[in-house]
Amino acid sequence: TKKMSELENSEQPAAAFSSELKGATNGGFDLAAVYVSDAQHNRNITFDASPPSVRLYLIYNHWMLHVLVYVFILVDLALALFEEPALIPLPVWATSMIELICLVAFAVRLAHFAKVVPRRIFLRDPKNICIIVIITLCLLDMIIYGALKVSGNYAVRWSRVLRPLLLVNVTEGRQLRRAFRSIRNALPQILVLFFLFMFSVLIFSLMALKLMGKRNLETIEGAPYFTNYLDIVFDLYVLVTTANSPDIMMPAYNYSSFFALFFILYIVINTYTFMSVFLAVVYNNYKKYLKEEVRQLVRAKRQKMCHAFSLLKEGGEEPVVSKAHWNRLVRLVQPDITNAHRELLWNVSDHHNRGHIGKVAFVQLADLLNIQVITLKSRAHPLHTWIPAIYESAVSKLICRMVRHRMFVYLYDAIILVNAVFIGLDEEDPVVSSAEWFFLTLYVLEILLKLYTFEPRTFFARHHFWNWFDTIIIVSALLATVINAALKSSGGYTSRQILDIVFILRVLRLIRVVDSIQRFRAIINTLIKIGPLMLTFGQLILVVYYIFAMVGMELFKGKVQFFSADSPDPAREYCGNALLKDTLFARNNYCKNNFNDVVSSFVLLLELTVVNQWDHLDGNLVDAMETQDNDMGPADTPSTKPTIMFKISSKSNKCFRCAAELRQLELSRCHQ
Amino acid sequence: TKKMSELENSEQPAAAFSSELKGATNGGFDLAAVYVSDAQHNRNITFDASPPSVRLYLIYNHWMLHVLVYVFILVDLALALFEEPALIPLPVWATSMIELICLVAFAVRLAHFAKVVPRRIFLRDPKNICIIVIITLCLLDMIIYGALKVSGNYAVRWSRVLRPLLLVNVTEGRQLRRAFRSIRNALPQILVLFFLFMFSVLIFSLMALKLMGKRNLETIEGAPYFTNYLDIVFDLYVLVTTANSPDIMMPAYNYSSFFALFFILYIVINTYTFMSVFLAVVYNNYKKYLKEEVRQLVRAKRQKMCHAFSLLKEGGEEPVVSKAHWNRLVRLVQPDITNAHRELLWNVSDHHNRGHIGKVAFVQLADLLNIQVITLKSRAHPLHTWIPAIYESAVSKLICRMVRHRMFVYLYDAIILVNAVFIGLDEEDPVVSSAEWFFLTLYVLEILLKLYTFEPRTFFARHHFWNWFDTIIIVSALLATVINAALKSSGGYTSRQILDIVFILRVLRLIRVVDSIQRFRAIINTLIKIGPLMLTFGQLILVVYYIFAMVGMELFKGKVQFFSADSPDPAREYCGNALLKDTLFARNNYCKNNFNDVVSSFVLLLELTVVNQWDHLDGNLVDAMETQDNDMGPADTPSTKPTIMFKISSKSNKCFRCAAELRQLELSRCHQ
Repeated sequence: TKKMSELENSEQPAAAFSSELKGATNGGFDLAAVYVSDAQHNRNITFDASPPSVRLYLIYNHWMLHVLVYVFILVDLALALFEEPALIPLPVWATSMIELICLVAFAVRLAHFAKVVPRRIFLRDPKNICIIVIITLCLLDMIIYGALKVSGNYAVRWSRVLRPLLLVNVTEGRQLRRAFRSIRNALPQILVLFFLFMFSVLIFSLMALKLMGKRNLETIEGAPYFTNYLDIVFDLYVLVTTANSPDIMMPAYNYSSFFALFFILYIVINTYTFMSVFLAVVYNNYKKYLKEEVRQLVRAKRQKMCHAFSLLKEGGEEPVVSKAHWNRLVRLVQPDITNAHRELLWNVSDHHNRGHIGKVAFVQLADLLNIQVITLKSRAHPLHTWIPAIYESAVSKLICRMVRHRMFVYLYDAIILVNAVFIGLDEEDPVVSSAEWFFLTLYVLEILLKLYTFEPRTFFARHHFWNWFDTIIIVSALLATVINAALKSSGGYTSRQILDIVFILRVLRLIRVVDSIQRFRAIINTLIKIGPLMLTFGQLILVVYYIFAMVGMELFKGKVQFFSADSPDPAREYCGNALLKDTLFARNNYCKNNFNDVVSSFVLLLELTVVNQWDHLDGNLVDAMETQDNDMGPADTPSTKPTIMFKISSKSNKCFRCAAELRQLELSRCHQ
Repeated sequence: TKKMSELENSEQPAAAFSSELKGATNGGFDLAAVYVSDAQHNRNITFDASPPSVRLYLIYNHWMLHVLVYVFILVDLALALFEEPALIPLPVWATSMIELICLVAFAVRLAHFAKVVPRRIFLRDPKNICIIVIITLCLLDMIIYGALKVSGNYAVRWSRVLRPLLLVNVTEGRQLRRAFRSIRNALPQILVLFFLFMFSVLIFSLMALKLMGKRNLETIEGAPYFTNYLDIVFDLYVLVTTANSPDIMMPAYNYSSFFALFFILYIVINTYTFMSVFLAVVYNNYKKYLKEEVRQLVRAKRQKMCHAFSLLKEGGEEPVVSKAHWNRLVRLVQPDITNAHRELLWNVSDHHNRGHIGKVAFVQLADLLNIQVITLKSRAHPLHTWIPAIYESAVSKLICRMVRHRMFVYLYDAIILVNAVFIGLDEEDPVVSSAEWFFLTLYVLEILLKLYTFEPRTFFARHHFWNWFDTIIIVSALLATVINAALKSSGGYTSRQILDIVFILRVLRLIRVVDSIQRFRAIINTLIKIGPLMLTFGQLILVVYYIFAMVGMELFKGKVQFFSADSPDPAREYCGNALLKDTLFARNNYCKNNFNDVVSSFVLLLELTVVNQWDHLDGNLVDAMETQDNDMGPADTPSTKPTIMFKISSKSNKCFRCAAELRQLELSRCHQ
């Protein structure tokens, strides 16, 4: 009953439309179709309801334009590969040209949006303002950078940190904005806990200073141990991430076993208790706000469906939508829907078989359209129609029975396991390399047998993931092996890259074995289903990484250099930076962990996310910075800050994943 | 209505009792009180209902005996401190004597239980069988060990791994058993996922072997990189715990940036995706089984209350319990309950004020008794009764007003912050050490002022945690500082231990500042409330650690030795084991991380739980074992196995904590 009354309430704005349009005109159908489509895809744009605007809006929502927007964003982001400090250097005019094209594209897209949306709403929307500001600042930066470069001055491309924000602020970044909004809303609660956590670290540090500072202990490097308060705070902060455990504890523990108690207490309180509470707070708050967001989404969806209903409704007392109108609407919303599928949906809505549906049944349409329906047609095998005599023969039937038998699956699982052993052996042995041909033949035979037994179009249906996977892997392996053999026999020379591809394909073949075990398949299917939801969080991480990579590159580029193993340069010993001489960083061969180009930066940031050794990775970079750039001002502030902020953001990653699962659950509950 | 029908069903067994006892006799009251008490404390023991058994059962449940059981278990567990390899060596006859006493105590306790419980049920209960087996095996081991020692042979105290199992199998270990049962039930699901995870590691290892094995790469130590399949599997397994990141990746990454992609993919799939799914599966399954357990608990509780009701019921058609009977029952169950509290509970039950309650209201009694009721009596201040003239004077009233004012709290917060700075300064400075006296005086003054303003008994009420905390800290600090000053002025000599205590007390004083901030207080109170629930999981970890420590001590004792820093022995360089020469283990001064006594073993196990560097910690121990104990058979199997098993158990720790919170929620929902 509550649901019903809400429906009644939301009718009022829609009533204005219906009286305006006087029944179900052509324009009315178009408008209703747009409402339904918006409800189906959770779009929440208040567009102008006049027919020309509706037509523009339809173009705006065309999937090609969505793809184009993402292509331009990707090109814009990928520019970092070619700009100074570049992986593949391109002249400044070329990158500027490409960036200009991208900016124009974004401006055009925004202008299109401005045409669709009422002026008042357009200017009140922060995401539009954001895009305008980003475009303006990027243009400004390009001009300043160009001018400074031409006059031979030092210039910084500061506007590059703004680029990933486009990903958040385009109309298509709805989910990403929702995730960011939930994080922002959860922030106050997290901050309170963070302050309490920092207070605990400070108190423990003070205790450590008082207990161990006066005992003249030394670290392994011979430095005084726990004598400087700020150093202790940093060391204990690092201990929370477990990166310097147990090294930080050893001097005190070697001095007296009782000091182990101090560290155990610290780890239990800060690493385990506080970090778990952090996780719980982030998870709960994110969940709470996401729930709220989903609730709003559902409300908006219902409202749009009510608008569509009032555009199409007939009859007086209890308005209904007839089957004819409904059919026309569904065809407009989803032109590629099959008749059988549409009939099915109608039967679900009109389960009393009255030929028309009321408001409650109509509102469900948006959710019904979202349900994936797989139409299974039992088609005869083409060979059966072409050569019925042979296909129906006893031998042929026996083959089909064999292929359908469970033993066939087990047989091929056994073959895969034997193949795994052969892959592990040295491939230069002639027996092993000829065995490879044997296995390839077996796999090709399997696919051919399956295609003989099962109807090919059913075999390659869109939802048969594993069939596609198999065929692609086997065919590519066959191609790569043939090319490899051809190269080998012709010149005796084999490209290392082709060989790598051959190896990868061979190993990927083994994954197939997972599909035969029911419980494994269930887990894998779940992971595949979560996949698209993870995309949102992948984008979120991309935004954070990109901003940090840009800042890091401007601050640290060229500070740490990598020399290949055969380089005779003595600077190879200390990564080309005299300050890194005899540090763990240089000794562990970490030189390639630098900010010299985007790819290295991303790899480094990922290593920091994985936590271990991050203090060596980063501490030494900071060391290298601090002393060299004295003329740049207090350099340690910007260089240590990103790390700490980054740690926090990487800690909460775990929660995004949980929340993604939650959201799926939430949405699936809405659909039921 | 469903609840009611369940109540009806559970009445049948209880009816047998009531007809037997014919109304509410004395014995009936005793029996009913036992039922209610069992329901209140979630005890689930099927005891003999005859009056002598009930009396024995009451003794069995006395809190003193519970405490005694835990004392004996603790003494039994603590024996590991004194037995070979001992922290404080005691002769074998002494430890055996103590163990014998403990075993006799457990046997007596079990015999008592056998008297209370019907024979048939006693022998069917696995936990009783377990205790019998443990006691027998311990006795057997003591005899064998004594005989072997006397005859001068090598002997192993293998029964020591059984000791922590007592903690699980005593009647009081209910919660612990429930936790273990939930873990055991969740295991099949976890194992399936673990196999899939291992499959993924194996596939990645194969790919790594094929891609990097032939490229002649070298690790920093100059060893061949990724050429042996089993080594790769182990390295990649360690990478999941992030302990060897990024070292394991560097050789390949230095060779070609593209190889970073392999490791990124590996980390994303195995470390992040699989580990998160692990967490989710463990959490969900544990939650599911714990919910089931709680549901059973609630059902058992209701059944017991129904039994109690049928013992006391009066009237024909709709049986009720009169207020007089109810009062007598409550006084029997909880003798220390105040009259006001009992009146309150009756009013809650009999909210229609009819002088008697029905079954549904009666069943709630067990939960009502569990609700903590704080009786606030507004008592006059003792000074007000003793010296009313002075206490009521204008000055006295002004003081009281000042102390109650918010500014008083802020003032003391400011004092604490200033004090924090002084604590951080060098305490040998005369200004700083005299400032300490000043601060102590201020804090004592604060407590005196508060006691002057607030009624002392209310101030020290049981639920005023922070008042207790303050007073204890300040009084001990005062005592310790006075002792310290007395020692200093008498002999000029100050004990380091007393100074340590003074420092710790000083720093602890600062924690007080947390209480003034409302939001901090809320978090701290939540943590304190979770505390008792964490105890169960503390016991669980104790059981696991103890078993591993015992096995580790038998396997590794004396293998790695610790020499204090001023020892002239050259063996100090390599921890007294030539095999550890020039290993990272010895270089990092890890010698004290050994299995030479229980305390060291526990610290080492905790370090392994914290994950970082566990491969160095353990790998080298394994190295040290492997070559030295060739005559002991395949030594690497037992030594690597505990680690891997341990990793798994430590990973799931996080979940126990979540589940503890859940259980609390679940229980609180039951109570509402």
